[in-house]
This record gives sequence, structure tokens and C-alpha cells, in this order.
Amino acid sequence: QDSNELKVRVEKGSIQMATDDGQFKFGIGGRVYMDAAGYFDDKTDLGSGSEIRDIRFLMKATVWKNWDAKINIGFDGGVVSLKDVFLQYNINKNSFFRAGHFLEPFGIEQTESSKTIKFMNFSSTVEAFRPGRNLGVSYDRWGKNYYWALGLFGSDANNWSEGDEGFGLTSRFVFAPINEDGTIFHIGVSGSYRSTDEDKFMDREYPKTVRYKSRAATHIERRSFIEAEIENAKDQFKYGIELLTSEGPVVLQAEYIKTKVNVDMPGSWENYNFTEEYKANGYYAQLAWLIKGGNYKYKMKSARLAKPSPGSIELLARFNKTNLNDEDSYIMGGEQKDISLGCTWYVNHNVLMKLNFTNVDLDENALNGEENFNMIQTRLQFSF
Amino acid sequence: QDSNELKVRVEKGSIQMATDDGQFKFGIGGRVYMDAAGYFDDKTDLGSGSEIRDIRFLMKATVWKNWDAKINIGFDGGVVSLKDVFLQYNINKNSFFRAGHFLEPFGIEQTESSKTIKFMNFSSTVEAFRPGRNLGVSYDRWGKNYYWALGLFGSDANNWSEGDEGFGLTSRFVFAPINEDGTIFHIGVSGSYRSTDEDKFMDREYPKTVRYKSRAATHIERRSFIEAEIENAKDQFKYGIELLTSEGPVVLQAEYIKTKVNVDMPGSWENYNFTEEYKANGYYAQLAWLIKGGNYKYKMKSARLAKPSPGSIELLARFNKTNLNDEDSYIMGGEQKDISLGCTWYVNHNVLMKLNFTNVDLDENALNGEENFNMIQTRLQFSF
Amino acid sequence: QDSNELKVRVEKGSIQMATDDGQFKFGIGGRVYMDAAGYFDDKTDLGSGSEIRDIRFLMKATVWKNWDAKINIGFDGGVVSLKDVFLQYNINKNSFFRAGHFLEPFGIEQTESSKTIKFMNFSSTVEAFRPGRNLGVSYDRWGKNYYWALGLFGSDANNWSEGDEGFGLTSRFVFAPINEDGTIFHIGVSGSYRSTDEDKFMDREYPKTVRYKSRAATHIERRSFIEAEIENAKDQFKYGIELLTSEGPVVLQAEYIKTKVNVDMPGSWENYNFTEEYKANGYYAQLAWLIKGGNYKYKMKSARLAKPSPGSIELLARFNKTNLNDEDSYIMGGEQKDISLGCTWYVNHNVLMKLNFTNVDLDENALNGEENFNMIQTRLQFSF
Repeated sequence: QDSNELKVRVEKGSIQMATDDGQFKFGIGGRVYMDAAGYFDDKTDLGSGSEIRDIRFLMKATVWKNWDAKINIGFDGGVVSLKDVFLQYNINKNSFFRAGHFLEPFGIEQTESSKTIKFMNFSSTVEAFRPGRNLGVSYDRWGKNYYWALGLFGSDANNWSEGDEGFGLTSRFVFAPINEDGTIFHIGVSGSYRSTDEDKFMDREYPKTVRYKSRAATHIERRSFIEAEIENAKDQFKYGIELLTSEGPVVLQAEYIKTKVNVDMPGSWENYNFTEEYKANGYYAQLAWLIKGGNYKYKMKSARLAKPSPGSIELLARFNKTNLNDEDSYIMGGEQKDISLGCTWYVNHNVLMKLNFTNVDLDENALNGEENFNMIQTRLQFSF
Repeated sequence: QDSNELKVRVEKGSIQMATDDGQFKFGIGGRVYMDAAGYFDDKTDLGSGSEIRDIRFLMKATVWKNWDAKINIGFDGGVVSLKDVFLQYNINKNSFFRAGHFLEPFGIEQTESSKTIKFMNFSSTVEAFRPGRNLGVSYDRWGKNYYWALGLFGSDANNWSEGDEGFGLTSRFVFAPINEDGTIFHIGVSGSYRSTDEDKFMDREYPKTVRYKSRAATHIERRSFIEAEIENAKDQFKYGIELLTSEGPVVLQAEYIKTKVNVDMPGSWENYNFTEEYKANGYYAQLAWLIKGGNYKYKMKSARLAKPSPGSIELLARFNKTNLNDEDSYIMGGEQKDISLGCTWYVNHNVLMKLNFTNVDLDENALNGEENFNMIQTRLQFSF
Repeated sequence: QDSNELKVRVEKGSIQMATDDGQFKFGIGGRVYMDAAGYFDDKTDLGSGSEIRDIRFLMKATVWKNWDAKINIGFDGGVVSLKDVFLQYNINKNSFFRAGHFLEPFGIEQTESSKTIKFMNFSSTVEAFRPGRNLGVSYDRWGKNYYWALGLFGSDANNWSEGDEGFGLTSRFVFAPINEDGTIFHIGVSGSYRSTDEDKFMDREYPKTVRYKSRAATHIERRSFIEAEIENAKDQFKYGIELLTSEGPVVLQAEYIKTKVNVDMPGSWENYNFTEEYKANGYYAQLAWLIKGGNYKYKMKSARLAKPSPGSIELLARFNKTNLNDEDSYIMGGEQKDISLGCTWYVNHNVLMKLNFTNVDLDENALNGEENFNMIQTRLQFSF
């Protein structure tokens, strides 16, 4: 059994090699996203232009039936970035252990691949508060109507910082009493606790800082318009509530996220009138409508929507609000409200085109103060 | 049709996976070039040594018959560099649309793969003036006797600079009335217009600068010996003329390139006696002779020579002159004349060996003034 | 023969494509190592944590029967690092020429893949003195009872430094009169001479420096605890002695390495009482015992142990001492003694788990002076 024939097939546009007994399965692939954006400036001079948003090489392997591995490396911007790089042991058909570098289980959009998110960019709320990928271990299980994941994560896959690492404990639970094709009702909750690093470098101790920031619903213009920096942070706690409900070709998806940072007030500050915590929150609600392509489908395994079938055309609308202002702690990071409209054409299993319009409204605490601007963005996406 | 068997074959030394119906085709490959160079110094102390000149991973895909994609990433020098990374839609057998990061259609040598260029290095003229790879879109078509390409390109695939991007419009047209095996006559012309970026960084505006420079027909010694820097540039216009003619095992290839940079003279300069443009030019002519391996072949699809067949041995000679001096604009970038002799052994489809000798002659405006030096270089090239 | 079918198989958990006639063979693969470490501090505050120790993409090719190529790129730490990147011509079944970037033939552990070294980290002796990978050429041959390799290497694969490169000449000879499964006796010797670079940068000459240093038998804590820096070095000479002997499921492996750096004393120093050389040495001895998995096997082709078979469990012990103190030259780099115990589970051909305990003892010349600390480390290793 040390040597076994692999059948090579193209499955939904991707290369798959597998043995007949299902013990071994390999995949290799790649992706390229090409974006262009035109900005209609207000106060800030925004840089219209184009970019390769994402380039990746991917290898997937299933070996000896129960062991899965994934190595996904990004090269956009001319730098190496680790994406999903993990090893997974499948306990049974409904649960697995995973170890490596992957997305913490928190909410819908944060855990979703950029291949399938509805708009070109995350909502600013998710961009500001998402824990992202970290090095850790997790346990995932799901049944007919529920999904649950719990993970423990370190803070720096490359371990550049000195001193002991901080850690995060994150969990997501979803209940989906109705999850048939065309009728979906899903409600979920996530929570995440994270301690800050012993942030030392070259024998000096730095104040432990937590940062929340977000770009203006776009990536070509790189600046963050809202940003809060909380110094002397001790730890942070986040929770999120998510709702997903679909009837036929229409789906409503909404998430609310709240975060609290506990501050380790230095002794010398005790005379100041300063609260010991920073609070921020945000939410988005988005509506998608498959004008061509049938009904929305659901995957309980990840507690998210399935990708619409090839040939589908989808209309989109999203309202998003992110508030990084906290008067009690005197940290005013700014508030962003944005409305996006979009259209996505799922050309085939490999190619996808997106067109997005966004209006961004910023308050007086944003990067350049109060302003309101519009943008048009488009993406040509290829993956296999 | 979502699942289909892939036949795996080795084709001319490379891996190819394809479905029987030709709808899907995948390729994976890599390349390594290893160079060594010995320099016989004049004034400048040149650094003899060795290097890995190129290392790449490559993925190619044809999906759903008409869609092609290519992801080619370079790792030489221990850094990521994007090579061809594009998506292509084949309209019919003789034309395609392309979008992504690829070589602007300008001349013969600039558009040629380093796998097949005759000498180890580009001619200094092409190195100085080539537009290189940029993020853009192009339309290519060819017939029995002509090739035409037109492309629109941005200026920075990673969009690091602030402000709106500049753009380039580039086109190449080739007429090849005779293009049979062993008798080739090809004449072509290319033109390229490029505006400069709104070059801002950190809220400061920088003068918009255009640079032309070239190494001394080698890569191991990294210094550029001729270099012109034109500040306050508004835009640049280049044109090139190319000639390719072959009789049996002998081929003559020549290119002339001229560039003009328009300068946006600041108001405060108006009293100076300063012309509003910078002009430079260069040309090369090279002779190749297959002492073993038959006649030269031609590909109308790219309007270039085909790679000689495995086992071929080729003798080479090239004269090249690049003049970056422009007295009218008081910018004296230097003039380089070089003569190269070479021999290439096409061992098999994958392996190739090169030996080059070059004499470089520089004028008083070059890096270290007038000097004349020689070098011997060799390459071991592997690709699949 | 330009087109030929490739049979795709999984061989010992890895993808292999080969033609029936054996002329072509391709492999693609990857690897991920995930480490965690807990340190029990003494004086120095050590940073416990986790990291992805290694991530790689690999391509292997055999083309036209005798030509082998390997491209192995690492991405750990979010940076590109060249591993084995070479081209090899197989003269016959027992010898080959190789050109590219690969490990200089010196000793057992230095030439061994991190996939099969017994402990999670090299012994500090090998870490301090190993020549590592360099760009060069080598000739390897082996017979029934011997292995011999000779290589010539440059100093910098990317050729960043100015001035002519230094070079190294390295050879390893092994005699293994007994090398049956379960009874192995192997003795070997290695030698390496290396000249220093003409170390120039930006037209300034820098003193030529040789550095020996080692971390504390771990990688998550990045600091080197012992380090010697020898300025104005002219060249260095190293030799190593190695012993490998096995009876049944038990194997003893030991290496002794000594290095000498010749110093090019500047004229102005002549009045000082300063010796013209620096000497350092170190050794390790390690015992491994397969409590499950049968006897140890040997590969004469590389003069090292074969990987234990899937399912094996191995107990390990190692004593290591590295002395960078040289009183004669007044360079006191520190002395490190460490004792390690370990257990390795070879789960299957792809997955491997390691648990290591190490006690480190440092003398007064180490980074933070005399100290003694312990650590527990664990690795989850995946490769295909």
C-alpha cells in the first residue's frame, strides 16, 4: 500500500488527484484577482489605480484517509504572506482537530474565503475587529442543525517579538434550524478573549498596544480612515452576533460585533480621570439577490452559504457602520458609515467578475475629518 | 461535465495535464538559471562571482476552452517578483484579450522570454528603454503575415504610491511577408506613450522622475554604468523599429529604439536656458548561426523566432550602442558600446548552456568615466 | 519521443509522475512544521511561544534519464529562502555532478534534511560551525562500502556584496565496512577551506569578519547565547570526524568539529601581543533506540541512516558541547553544554511528532553570563 495509482481529474475547474480507495487526495491550484478603482474625491486626495489584489499558490493533501493538509501562500504586493497553512485530523465525518495558521472561528465574513465574500472587500466592521489568521489549534464539529468551533491561538506565527507570547481563545456557535436549499434560517454567536503580548524588543519593554482600524471599503487606496490605538492594553474581549436568512433567490446576512479593551493603568495615571476600558462596535446588513442562478444553498460544515452555481448573476446591497469613538476613554477613532451596491457574475467555476459602487461617510474624528466620497471598483477573479 | 479525466503527459520535457476534449489543460513547472562571470577590470573594480540568476514556480491553466491563466513567480535574490501573472480570453484561433501583469508589446527582445533570448543578457539598449511588465489589458491578433498588439497599462502592480496612477499605451505591429522555415523576412514598428504618476508619498509631492539606466551587459556585477535621470517629467514617448531576416541556419536581428521625455518646467526655471525635452536612443544588431540543428523557424503568433531544436549549437555576435547623452537638455547619462560573442548549446528541451564574451566601451559620462573592459560569462539553464 | 504518458502514483505518501521507460519523473510536494516551546528561565527572560518552523513548496524533475533538478523554496517567517535549488547530471548509478545551491558535503547532521534529523534542532556544534548551503558545484560517488564528495562553492547566491566573491572547497569521505540492516559501522572525515570575501560595499572596504554562533538548542527563542566574531579574517579551515554505529534497534552517532580562522593582522597591530589565529571546537554524541519499528537501516548513497518505517517510536538522548572560547586570541565566545532527551513518533510516511526536553548550561562568556535553564519543545511535522 506504499504505492498506489492516482486518478487525475478536473473537478469544478480544479485539478484533483485521488486514489480509488479515497485514502489519498491531492490538489494544486492558484488564484489571481485583478482590481481597478476610481475614486471621486472629497477632502482627501484618493489614489485611483489598479492592482493585483491577490496571487496564490495552493497545495492540498489528504493522506492515510484521515489527515488533511493545506499550504496556501500569497504573493500579492511582492511579499510572502501565509494564508491557510495547517494540518487537520478528521475524527469522523462531523468533526476534526486542526493545528496551524488559519482563521479564528469568529462570525461569518471573517471566516469566509475572499473567493466567495459578496463584495470586493470585507465590511469595515469586520476589517476593524476581525481576529484574522493566527497560529493555533481548534476543534470543529457540526451536526444536522448546528456548528461549533473552539480554538486556542498564539499571537505571532513568526515569533519575532521577545518575551512570552499572548494568546487568544475564540469560539463560534451557530444554530440553523432551517437549512434546505431555498429556505435558510441561521443564527449564531461568537466570542473571543485575547491577552496582549509581553511586548519586548531589544531588552526594552514597550507599552502593550491594541489597534483597530479600517480602510474605506477599498484596498487600492491604502489609507485607513478610522483608527483607534489603545495603549497599555491588558486584554480584549469581543463578541459577535450573526444572522443569515434566505427565501429562494434572496438572502439577508447581518453581523454585529462589539469589542472591549481592558487597560492596565500605569500607577502615575491614577490622579487622572481615566476609565479603565475602551469600547467600540459596528454592524453590517447585506442583501443579495440571484437574478439568475436559482436559490441559495447552505453548508452546515462551515455554517455559511455555498458558492452560487456557474452562470449566476447576483445583485447586492450593504449598509455598514463602524464606530471607533469612545468618549469615556477619550479615544475617538472615528465613525464610518458606508452604503455599497454591487453586481457579481459567476462566469464559470473559475472566473468571476465584480462591480461595486460605494458611498463612504466619515465623521469629524476620521483621518481627514468629516467627508463623504464615492467610488467605483471592479474585479476580475480567477482561481483553480 | 463538472468532472472529467485529465491525461497526464510529458510534452517537450514539461508536465501537461489535459482532458480529451481539449476544454481543460494544466501545466506546472519551474526554472533555474545558474550564472558565473569573470571580469577583467579597467578603472572600476568589478565583482567576479556566481549567482542563481532566476528561480521560478509556474502554473498554467486553460479552463472552459477559452480561458487561459498563467501564474509565474520568481524567487531569485531571495525576494518575490511577479512575472507573467495574467488571465486571457481567447476570442478565436488568431486573437485574444489579456488582463494582468505582463510584458508591454514593444519590440522583439523586450517581449521575449529569458528562456530564449540569444545572449545571457538583454542588449543594453533594450535594458535601458524597455517598458517591462506592467499591470494592464491588451488585445493581440495575428494572421498569416502580420501580428498586432495594443495594450493599456497602469504603473505599479502593487499600488504603493499615493495619488492617481500614471498610465501607458503601447502597441506593436509586425509585417512578415516571408515566414517559412529557413526563409524569414520580418519588419516591425512599436510605439509607447506613458504619463508619469502623481508621485506623492506621505502627503508630500515629489518631482516626477523618469530614469533610464543599464548595466554593462551583465547581471552579476550589479552596477549601472550609464544612467540618465530626468526630473519634472510630464510624459515620455518611445518608438522602436525592428528587423528580422533569416536564410537557412543564419539569422540577423536588429532593433533601433528612440525615446523622448517631455519636461514640465517649473515656473521658477523660466529664466534658464533649458529645453523642455530629453532625447536618447540606441540600437543593436545581432547575427546567429546554427552550426548544428537545421534552419531557423518562426512563430507568427508572437512575431519572434522559435526555439532551436534540441541538440542545436549556435554561434552568436552582437554589436550594441546606447546613447543617454543629450547635450540640449544638459543631461549626460553616458554612452555604452559593446561587442559580444557567444555560443549556446541546446542540450535537450530542458537544459541549455551558454558561454558569452563581451567587450564594453564607455565614454567619459559613464559611472567612472571613460573605460574599456572585458568579461566572460557562462550560464547553466534548466526549465520544465 | 517528445510526448509520452506520465503515470501518476502516490509513493510513500508523496505524488510521483513517471513515464514507463523511466526517462522522465516529476514530483511536487510541500512541508509544514509547527513548533511550540516552553522555557523555564534562569537569568535571561526567554520567550515561550509557538511558530511555524518551516513551510516549503518543492518541485523535483528527472528529465532525459540522466538530468535531475530540484527546486525547494522556504517561506517560513514570511520571507523567501532558497533551500536545495540545483541541477544534477547522473554519470552512472554510483556518481553524479551537481551544480546549484545545496548543502556543502561536511559531516552527518549538516548534510541531513530537517525531515529526518533526530532532535528538533541541530546540535549547537553543527549550528555554529556548519558551512550550510552555498552556490557551487560538486562531484559525489559511492560504492559498496564508501562515499566520497568534493565541492567548490561561492559565498553568496544572490551576489549582493561588491568585489570578487570568496570561495570554499569542501570534501567528505566515509568508510562503512559494515552497513547491513541492523548492523552498521561507519566512520568518516570531512574538511573545508574557505577564503573570505573581498567585502566591499558602496566603495568602502569593510574588515572581513567570520562569525560563529549558536542558539540554545531551540528556534522559537531566537537569541544566540554563544557567539564569536573574528575580524580581519583571511580564511578558515574546518575538519570534522564522524562515527555511526548500530546494533539492532539502537544507534550511536557522534561528530567532532574543529575550526581555525587565520587572521590577516593589520600593520598597525604589530606591536600588540596578538596571535594570528582563532581556534574553536565542539562535539556531540547521541543515542537513539527504536522501541517500536525494527532495526536501523543505512543508505550508502548519502552515508546516513534511512528514515525509520511508519509507526516507529524512537527514544533519544544527546550530549553536546560547543566551545567558542579561545584564550590565545582573546576572543571568548562562550561555552555551551546541553543534554537533550527526546521521543519521536513516526505516525505515517507524512506525519511525525516530536517531544524534546533540553537542559542548557552556559559559562560566564555567554550572552548573559553563566546560567542554566531547561525547556520542553514539541513539533508536529507534515511533509509530502
